[in-house]
Amino acid sequence: MQQLVSELTAIVGPGGVLTEKSDLDFYGKDSCKEYAANPSAIVLPTTREQVRDIVLACRKHKTALVPSGGRTGYSGGATAQNREIVLSLSKMNRIKGINLQNQTITVEAGVTTEAIQQAARAKSLYYPVDFASRGSSQIGGNVATNAGGVRVIRYGSTREWVLGLEVVTGSGEILELNGELYKNATGYDLRSLFIGSEGTLGIITAVTLKLTQIPPPSTLGLLAFDTTERATEILTKMRLEGFTVSLIEYFEANALRLVLSHIGARRPFQADYSSYLLLECETPRADEVERFTERLARLVEDDKIKDVIVAQSEAQRLELMALRERISETLAKVSLPHKNDISVSLDQVAPFILEFKSEFCTKFPGVTVVIFGHIGDGNLHINSLKPESLSLEQFKKLTSDIDKLTFELVRAHRGSISAEHGVGILKRDYLSYSRSAVEVEFMREIKRSFDPGLIMNPGKIFLAD
Amino acid sequence: MQQLVSELTAIVGPGGVLTEKSDLDFYGKDSCKEYAANPSAIVLPTTREQVRDIVLACRKHKTALVPSGGRTGYSGGATAQNREIVLSLSKMNRIKGINLQNQTITVEAGVTTEAIQQAARAKSLYYPVDFASRGSSQIGGNVATNAGGVRVIRYGSTREWVLGLEVVTGSGEILELNGELYKNATGYDLRSLFIGSEGTLGIITAVTLKLTQIPPPSTLGLLAFDTTERATEILTKMRLEGFTVSLIEYFEANALRLVLSHIGARRPFQADYSSYLLLECETPRADEVERFTERLARLVEDDKIKDVIVAQSEAQRLELMALRERISETLAKVSLPHKNDISVSLDQVAPFILEFKSEFCTKFPGVTVVIFGHIGDGNLHINSLKPESLSLEQFKKLTSDIDKLTFELVRAHRGSISAEHGVGILKRDYLSYSRSAVEVEFMREIKRSFDPGLIMNPGKIFLAD
Repeated sequence: MQQLVSELTAIVGPGGVLTEKSDLDFYGKDSCKEYAANPSAIVLPTTREQVRDIVLACRKHKTALVPSGGRTGYSGGATAQNREIVLSLSKMNRIKGINLQNQTITVEAGVTTEAIQQAARAKSLYYPVDFASRGSSQIGGNVATNAGGVRVIRYGSTREWVLGLEVVTGSGEILELNGELYKNATGYDLRSLFIGSEGTLGIITAVTLKLTQIPPPSTLGLLAFDTTERATEILTKMRLEGFTVSLIEYFEANALRLVLSHIGARRPFQADYSSYLLLECETPRADEVERFTERLARLVEDDKIKDVIVAQSEAQRLELMALRERISETLAKVSLPHKNDISVSLDQVAPFILEFKSEFCTKFPGVTVVIFGHIGDGNLHINSLKPESLSLEQFKKLTSDIDKLTFELVRAHRGSISAEHGVGILKRDYLSYSRSAVEVEFMREIKRSFDPGLIMNPGKIFLAD
Repeated sequence: MQQLVSELTAIVGPGGVLTEKSDLDFYGKDSCKEYAANPSAIVLPTTREQVRDIVLACRKHKTALVPSGGRTGYSGGATAQNREIVLSLSKMNRIKGINLQNQTITVEAGVTTEAIQQAARAKSLYYPVDFASRGSSQIGGNVATNAGGVRVIRYGSTREWVLGLEVVTGSGEILELNGELYKNATGYDLRSLFIGSEGTLGIITAVTLKLTQIPPPSTLGLLAFDTTERATEILTKMRLEGFTVSLIEYFEANALRLVLSHIGARRPFQADYSSYLLLECETPRADEVERFTERLARLVEDDKIKDVIVAQSEAQRLELMALRERISETLAKVSLPHKNDISVSLDQVAPFILEFKSEFCTKFPGVTVVIFGHIGDGNLHINSLKPESLSLEQFKKLTSDIDKLTFELVRAHRGSISAEHGVGILKRDYLSYSRSAVEVEFMREIKRSFDPGLIMNPGKIFLAD
């Protein structure tokens, strides 16, 4: 290892290799708190050639490499548990250029999501992938995990916005995949393989993203329902009437109650209801705000919605958004939440929730389960809260049973056990619930092609050998 | 071969295997006329299990298989030249279902593009991928070639609309990839590998497509320019002003002249100009038609556009569209066109056209070159017309030099030698102009994983061994 560290230092210079305990702890893990950081060294290259040389050095020394971006992932995909070298892209944070005619931006992998959003805005363009960790998450990691967020319903996931990728494979090859082209029908789309590969095939060093026009103004409503089914019907109704839905987020009564008490706000409606939607539609002109408001009012009259509030100001919009955006921090404050992040097709959302809650209540009485999420993508975040009466040990035993119940039901509904958080270490042992053994074997063969030394982020997604 | 044909007959029944000369000619080639059909037999399965059994039988007998859809491709991707078995998906043409809440349609691979468009419309939904061969092209082939067309500028290529794929690999495995899920972060996206793989990895047997809302009304204009550069600036201008461009097609003076004389129509403008655009923008309401019309009028006043016609009726819209849509048939009528289908990034379109024409005129005096295409995707169709004075032999020698000039310039502009027509046989020897040797080697390894017997559509895209 000493020899490898010397070689890495020769590649990136003395300031580019960190071995202090505090650095190892800082760079050695992501936002998944279940695993401790234990890397050998952190290396911070500044060019793709340095990245290639680091890969070749690690391959020579048969030492594992963990690529690392903003470390905002929830599944341990960027956690180094086993004395790996962590390759941080943080110093590769240059915006290489915006091409106005092509509506594209080309950036190094360490540029934050927010910096891209801002650079686009400065040229009257828009990068639509957005989520709470935008300020620290890096685009390389966004691509490696196919990041989603709150705008997928309108704009799709990161995959839909990647035009070109520059990668260094685990075999030490630099690939420039697709450049800035919108159309290219010349063989297999290797670019797509790297999107969502969680650092197991190689290291993304630069990305060309599509940009789009700045969206028109939109209007936000908070809708209350007496059943989950009613809530899941609204999206289809609004779309059939020509509304462009730009956000639709679901949460249930227990989430609202916890958030209100956590942030000390008044409840939005006089009465309590079983579930809620934040629904935003594009309203380019004033009369479309009216049309949206009137349509919701009519749905209340028809008893499809129990009650509704339409935001009348930016301040009220932010207040309503907070009811959803602050759920995660509230849960972390009041308890220890065990998180699952699943998806099913949209018609299966209501049946899934009903079945899940019914089974959960029978099998885990005394455990509060809070369900919320990007319902328009079929994506639910399921949080099981540790009861105070249980020790951490006892709860961990329980969550393993909760996972099994959840994933069995996901499989029965032909869903995914990880909608947008990736597999990492956390979901690795459950991969078979969403991917067949044959698929995983094909993944292993692809892994061996791009990373013949099996040095790239081993133990993430699946076991390669 | 006799033994294999018996086994195939046992799998699909006597009506499912064709060996008559007329059938071999009919099913043995696509719309690329440069290669003669020479298959051994045609087999028409009706289930995915039959497809699997056919693959396994061919693998056992070490006999190549050519998957075949609507045979509307231009690159010989579905042409059987070497006594292969052609597997036609034409009998697998069942629409399995439309999921209204999920906005998806699931179909067998042999369903035509048009049948999907119509099935969607019948449920007030929309499948946006569209092109002239919609009536005969099949969705399996659309996916296998990542078909584009005239709506890519607004809706993207087929890739963007594929949610799930069912495939039979060259190794005889049935894979169900992603089902009906909008979000799924569980490992490598094998689905993306099959999109655009031109039948070289396996056979697509069913597809789940996203659908979307029916688009609002739109308005079409014909714009005349005195330079190519001016024409290519319009898209950026319109987008910056918030217009949603739903079609933008480019053609030059010589194409217009030929089409007008072929269809016997009056010329649209009094004067002649060097290049033209058909530009369509979404105009959901009457006052947006006005805004579009006024904006174009102002661009004429500012001398950015030389002249403009905005369609005032559906009949006039169709007349204007015909000026672009009938170019291909006109060229086939008046001459023998040698076709290239290239793409560059949008800022490179005007420089590419200028350089190309300048070099072309010097090197190939006496050859008419007609350039048109989907300029908003950076996609140009370049047609070199055989001069009457040259024999077919002489012209073929010339077109090989034309290809080299074209592809050298494409490479210099970091473009693609095949934007939407695929590689097939026709472009195989030129693949290195758009993909590096290392990339092609990775493609070969992927091919060997999914098709270890190398029976799937050999000789297409690249040579596998």
